[in-house]
Amino acid sequence: MLVNSALYDDGRIVAEPGLDGVSEALQAKSGFVWIALRDPTDDELNRLQHELDLPPLAVEDARKGHQRPKVEEYGDMLFAAMHLIEVGPQGELEVGEVHVFVGARFVVSVRHRSQQGFLGVRGRAEREPHLLQLGPGFVFYALMDAVVDRYFPLIDAIEAELEQLEETMFQHGQDRQALVQRLFALKQRLATLRHAVSPLLEVTAKLHGGRVPSVCKAMHDYFRDVSDHLLRIQASIDAARETIVSATQVNLTLVTIDESLVTKRLAAWAAIFAASTALAGIWGMNFEKMPELKWAWGYPMALGAIVLVSGALYWRFKRLQWL
Amino acid sequence: MLVNSALYDDGRIVAEPGLDGVSEALQAKSGFVWIALRDPTDDELNRLQHELDLPPLAVEDARKGHQRPKVEEYGDMLFAAMHLIEVGPQGELEVGEVHVFVGARFVVSVRHRSQQGFLGVRGRAEREPHLLQLGPGFVFYALMDAVVDRYFPLIDAIEAELEQLEETMFQHGQDRQALVQRLFALKQRLATLRHAVSPLLEVTAKLHGGRVPSVCKAMHDYFRDVSDHLLRIQASIDAARETIVSATQVNLTLVTIDESLVTKRLAAWAAIFAASTALAGIWGMNFEKMPELKWAWGYPMALGAIVLVSGALYWRFKRLQWL
Amino acid sequence: MLVNSALYDDGRIVAEPGLDGVSEALQAKSGFVWIALRDPTDDELNRLQHELDLPPLAVEDARKGHQRPKVEEYGDMLFAAMHLIEVGPQGELEVGEVHVFVGARFVVSVRHRSQQGFLGVRGRAEREPHLLQLGPGFVFYALMDAVVDRYFPLIDAIEAELEQLEETMFQHGQDRQALVQRLFALKQRLATLRHAVSPLLEVTAKLHGGRVPSVCKAMHDYFRDVSDHLLRIQASIDAARETIVSATQVNLTLVTIDESLVTKRLAAWAAIFAASTALAGIWGMNFEKMPELKWAWGYPMALGAIVLVSGALYWRFKRLQWL
Amino acid sequence: MLVNSALYDDGRIVAEPGLDGVSEALQAKSGFVWIALRDPTDDELNRLQHELDLPPLAVEDARKGHQRPKVEEYGDMLFAAMHLIEVGPQGELEVGEVHVFVGARFVVSVRHRSQQGFLGVRGRAEREPHLLQLGPGFVFYALMDAVVDRYFPLIDAIEAELEQLEETMFQHGQDRQALVQRLFALKQRLATLRHAVSPLLEVTAKLHGGRVPSVCKAMHDYFRDVSDHLLRIQASIDAARETIVSATQVNLTLVTIDESLVTKRLAAWAAIFAASTALAGIWGMNFEKMPELKWAWGYPMALGAIVLVSGALYWRFKRLQWL
Amino acid sequence: MLVNSALYDDGRIVAEPGLDGVSEALQAKSGFVWIALRDPTDDELNRLQHELDLPPLAVEDARKGHQRPKVEEYGDMLFAAMHLIEVGPQGELEVGEVHVFVGARFVVSVRHRSQQGFLGVRGRAEREPHLLQLGPGFVFYALMDAVVDRYFPLIDAIEAELEQLEETMFQHGQDRQALVQRLFALKQRLATLRHAVSPLLEVTAKLHGGRVPSVCKAMHDYFRDVSDHLLRIQASIDAARETIVSATQVNLTLVTIDESLVTKRLAAWAAIFAASTALAGIWGMNFEKMPELKWAWGYPMALGAIVLVSGALYWRFKRLQWL
Repeated sequence: MLVNSALYDDGRIVAEPGLDGVSEALQAKSGFVWIALRDPTDDELNRLQHELDLPPLAVEDARKGHQRPKVEEYGDMLFAAMHLIEVGPQGELEVGEVHVFVGARFVVSVRHRSQQGFLGVRGRAEREPHLLQLGPGFVFYALMDAVVDRYFPLIDAIEAELEQLEETMFQHGQDRQALVQRLFALKQRLATLRHAVSPLLEVTAKLHGGRVPSVCKAMHDYFRDVSDHLLRIQASIDAARETIVSATQVNLTLVTIDESLVTKRLAAWAAIFAASTALAGIWGMNFEKMPELKWAWGYPMALGAIVLVSGALYWRFKRLQWL
Repeated sequence: MLVNSALYDDGRIVAEPGLDGVSEALQAKSGFVWIALRDPTDDELNRLQHELDLPPLAVEDARKGHQRPKVEEYGDMLFAAMHLIEVGPQGELEVGEVHVFVGARFVVSVRHRSQQGFLGVRGRAEREPHLLQLGPGFVFYALMDAVVDRYFPLIDAIEAELEQLEETMFQHGQDRQALVQRLFALKQRLATLRHAVSPLLEVTAKLHGGRVPSVCKAMHDYFRDVSDHLLRIQASIDAARETIVSATQVNLTLVTIDESLVTKRLAAWAAIFAASTALAGIWGMNFEKMPELKWAWGYPMALGAIVLVSGALYWRFKRLQWL
Repeated sequence: MLVNSALYDDGRIVAEPGLDGVSEALQAKSGFVWIALRDPTDDELNRLQHELDLPPLAVEDARKGHQRPKVEEYGDMLFAAMHLIEVGPQGELEVGEVHVFVGARFVVSVRHRSQQGFLGVRGRAEREPHLLQLGPGFVFYALMDAVVDRYFPLIDAIEAELEQLEETMFQHGQDRQALVQRLFALKQRLATLRHAVSPLLEVTAKLHGGRVPSVCKAMHDYFRDVSDHLLRIQASIDAARETIVSATQVNLTLVTIDESLVTKRLAAWAAIFAASTALAGIWGMNFEKMPELKWAWGYPMALGAIVLVSGALYWRFKRLQWL
Repeated sequence: MLVNSALYDDGRIVAEPGLDGVSEALQAKSGFVWIALRDPTDDELNRLQHELDLPPLAVEDARKGHQRPKVEEYGDMLFAAMHLIEVGPQGELEVGEVHVFVGARFVVSVRHRSQQGFLGVRGRAEREPHLLQLGPGFVFYALMDAVVDRYFPLIDAIEAELEQLEETMFQHGQDRQALVQRLFALKQRLATLRHAVSPLLEVTAKLHGGRVPSVCKAMHDYFRDVSDHLLRIQASIDAARETIVSATQVNLTLVTIDESLVTKRLAAWAAIFAASTALAGIWGMNFEKMPELKWAWGYPMALGAIVLVSGALYWRFKRLQWL
Repeated sequence: MLVNSALYDDGRIVAEPGLDGVSEALQAKSGFVWIALRDPTDDELNRLQHELDLPPLAVEDARKGHQRPKVEEYGDMLFAAMHLIEVGPQGELEVGEVHVFVGARFVVSVRHRSQQGFLGVRGRAEREPHLLQLGPGFVFYALMDAVVDRYFPLIDAIEAELEQLEETMFQHGQDRQALVQRLFALKQRLATLRHAVSPLLEVTAKLHGGRVPSVCKAMHDYFRDVSDHLLRIQASIDAARETIVSATQVNLTLVTIDESLVTKRLAAWAAIFAASTALAGIWGMNFEKMPELKWAWGYPMALGAIVLVSGALYWRFKRLQWL
């Protein structure tokens, strides 16, 4: 589906050529075309490929989707794939994609399986003509910056949940299974985020250091800034991963400690009852000569002895913190 | 066993020289020979070596099989080994191999211990003469692409099974041993796949970046595409491995939690029965003066006391979720 | 908030131009300006950017804070971010930041969320004019050196606590949960420190080896010294991390051993009581012909037998170290 | 002890100069000397050093033995150390060494603490004069190839044992301690093998890529072949190590599951007996009015009740798979 | 404290200038000064710095001590720091340091917190004038060689203790806590050794490969030899570390197995006693019609039944190896 198609010159919009007028619009001496597609049909991609002479392998990738984040050079054209991550209705992370074709005089963004549009990016760019004048390289930066900025709230949410887990973890009476399950789910979410960030970090490094592709030449500092944002997210991901690994291990120890406490309590109560039963058993024997059985106060004394022994054991276990 | 042998010129088949007519067929001014062998005899390999002047060490490798995936240069000839992985009758992975000799005017593929043929590859190539015109380099790419594409369903199957395991893992009453066993089996399958993919990834990197062997020169973008596919598989493998490691660890914690639950239940029932026994023991003592023994309602009251104490304990343990 | 602003020439202070007189002060033929800000307002940063022509992306970073440690080159200007770590009231680590802009004729330090000032650094520098003559590069070194020196007491404190934990860990009767919790807290503190040190180490390497930015040229040995300090801290962090990992693992084993001891003790007492109860139960049977029941010394003998058996078991378990 | 000493020219043996005639033999215009020593005395090494002008540091290494695998250049001479691994009488691995001095016109092999000789290598070489003509470089390759080929059966044996362990591991009633012990022993064996293979792999890489020492120049493809064999062994070692790590972890989980099963069984039988005892205790109370005590069928009914309750519990636990 | 100070020329000692005559002694046309200090005072270091024009940052390091092992170039002077490790009275490792300043015509060694002197090194050097002629570079090598050689007995002792632990680990009835404690202590000792060896290995690599500092030029092969020794120690450390990690993990499994055995034994004895008690309880019931109570042989039969059941259970558990 075509979302938008505009010809910009000197930082201002001068025409909206649609999908089929693109090559004609580019007959103009200067300016560049910025086209946005969403979940495009085969036909739309074919027409675009024909209009802009896009490389077949890149168009194939854009058609199939499910690419890893990457930036590939085809002659002096760039093809980039980035992940768009959204929080689904049950809090799970859903991965969409945006593919960007960047040429000397065009930018095409192709969005897949995602609700997150880039109208805001276009709006901001149109309000700052001096930046838009920088051409397709700037638009590419602006799109990438928007994608990366949307990763921050995701990692922030993970960190917040992790912090809360850390606080409750050492409290007694936690549902340890639920804790393990939440830690595991967090780790899976982190993995999703990492698969979006790590390969992108690798490729952005090439956009501001060493041999920079020509369309990004003037944008050196800007791409370094994106790279720096990705590094920060990456550092947060690494820290969170490590905390989860530690927490999972700590949780296992706490489970074992919990079990140890239960075993102690079991041992204590078993001892108290066993002592009572042993005493009662002794006075339940049928020997003829058991003088205390005939005492007037024999029974209360026996009961007293049982209570005393049980109480003494109880007090002792209480002091040992077994109860 | 010779599967196929054809001389292509200008993208079209012009002769089928068999095994012994190869050097003669190559007397033609242009064109190249594409030969496919399967589990070849020593004699077949020797004749081929003689016809095409193949390097002895490479032929030795092709004879013995059981190579790691690799691409080796011998002068301006390439020798490649790749793993073919098939799902066996009991779902286990079986590893075969294909070796490819690529020269300026020939391609030889030697398949070992595998049902997966490459007739489809030949068919598709013959239907697209403009690609076949690109010569042995293209055929090499087409074979490698076919091999790599066959890895996708394998990793997909592993991911699907893993996802199912993740879902059931946190449910109560799982057979934890079976879970561990399935996780272990998945890890072994992943290892098989990784040993096919990782070394191949290393070598394909050399086929599209830096100093590219001459027979692959024109195929730069195609081999980068194969490399990209391998990277995607590699990323999936890494993610699956990590999930398995986490899941194994989580499973250990869940086993320990399960044991803790059993210990608690044991403790609870032991306490209930021990209390009953202690009470019955007390009224089973033989003191002469135990007034309640003579009460008309003594026995029902005793039974009532036992039921009451047991019930109270039961209710308490229920509330503690020990039962 | 402006903390300080001074124009130095020939190693001596010659003017205090405030925030707005900076560009005017720099009309002087020689000398450089050293400005210190703390939690600056947007307005202060804007004025400074205007006066010194600071790069917008760097000013944006300084405005927002929460940067990873880094050194970025903008033309022949440097922008550095470093973490300031303080021990908070409950012993937790609080992370602030200092950003430094270093130009050919100015140094600006911007401190965020931190009580740690750099007046001492300025004081020492003013007392040594021959060093201050070296210009902004020296001031940059002095600031970085001060930041890094403040990491030493933090890692020392962690090492001291760790050493104490190691000593108590193998003593019996430890609160294992508290141990786990302290180890976990130490690991989190180490992570905070590491996130300050590791990226800084990466960037300082660039300030004394290979292509050194021009403002740091003369300071080669000094920055190598800072790098060496960071390496020492890094080595201590790595060693402490490893010790914590080992200690956590050891603690799990000790917890399991502890539980084993409890189970043994439970087993021993259960056996002693069960033997008594079984014996008493036997003499409590109602057979008519149980001759010992009629013996004069039957009861004391029975008691003796019970005591004897219990004592024998007790002695045996004592020897097995189960009790 | 001198094992062998021969002067080869044009691929054929022309003299057997012993240890002292070496320098004299090398007066001949062409040809090279191949000397084999075994556990040499100091005197033998000194004479050889004198005859061939071997570098003192290398001779010192050969004298002391216990070197890591390495290849060192001394001018245009090479000194190599490789590990010889044999299976000892109790199946343990015993590490010997062979040191090789390779010069333009000599090869000296010095074997330490090993039964594995290289007579077979010499024999095969003498039968193929066209290879022996290649000189010391070929002999060096042939020795290294022989050493590396002897690693294959060792890793094969480890893999076979590991496969067997994997199969039995999930069967019930395994002796888990023996399993752990065997896994640990396998890991130690793997470590021995890895310490022979990994450093050798590093150095062979230098013998076929980049700046190759002059004596190995013509042998480029041969050393790449050795390197490829080492890579295959290395890959097998890595895979086996990983399997052992997984298996050890799995085994811990299985031990915990086993313990859980025992605890369940204990709990079940304890409950059955406790119920019986509680019932018997109730009818053993001494209340005067316990009507059922007087019933004619009271006792059989009581027994029936006990059997019924025990049976019901037994059936329940059976269904829960606790028994 | 000044230990020694000598001027060597042509491999022979020609003067003993003390600390203050050094610069004067170096007026001689040739020769070099070798000075040894131990725990020097500030004053001694200052005088030396003045005499030899040592770089302030390096002197500062030597004054403060507690450096990581390193080699730094200051112009054509080298400053090296190495760790001296001694076994303390309780077997713990104590870390001292030696700092070495190497100039074109002087070597200064400064020893801190260590009993290990270098008189032996000086003695051996003086006995071999042809080596001493090589100048400060040789002395530097000799000192480093002496330091590294002293690491061998330390790693040997660790390996010996580890081997002994491995043997006892699988024996029954081990004190598992003591085992864990010894493994942990070994790991700490290894860490100490590793922090001495690893950084030194990094820096020695620079002394024999690539751009070698001028004072070490002629010593190429000697420093490679030191490097090789360090590599061997490093390999031993890595192997020992890995063994300790495995052994700790194995020990945890063995602890869990031990606990399982205790639980089984507990379960078995509990079952035996519970059966006896249940039987005795049944015959202790007060039903009027319990014919066996009146039999003449009732009591012996009951005892027999109890013994029989207990014996049968005992035999069964014995066969299951629960007892």
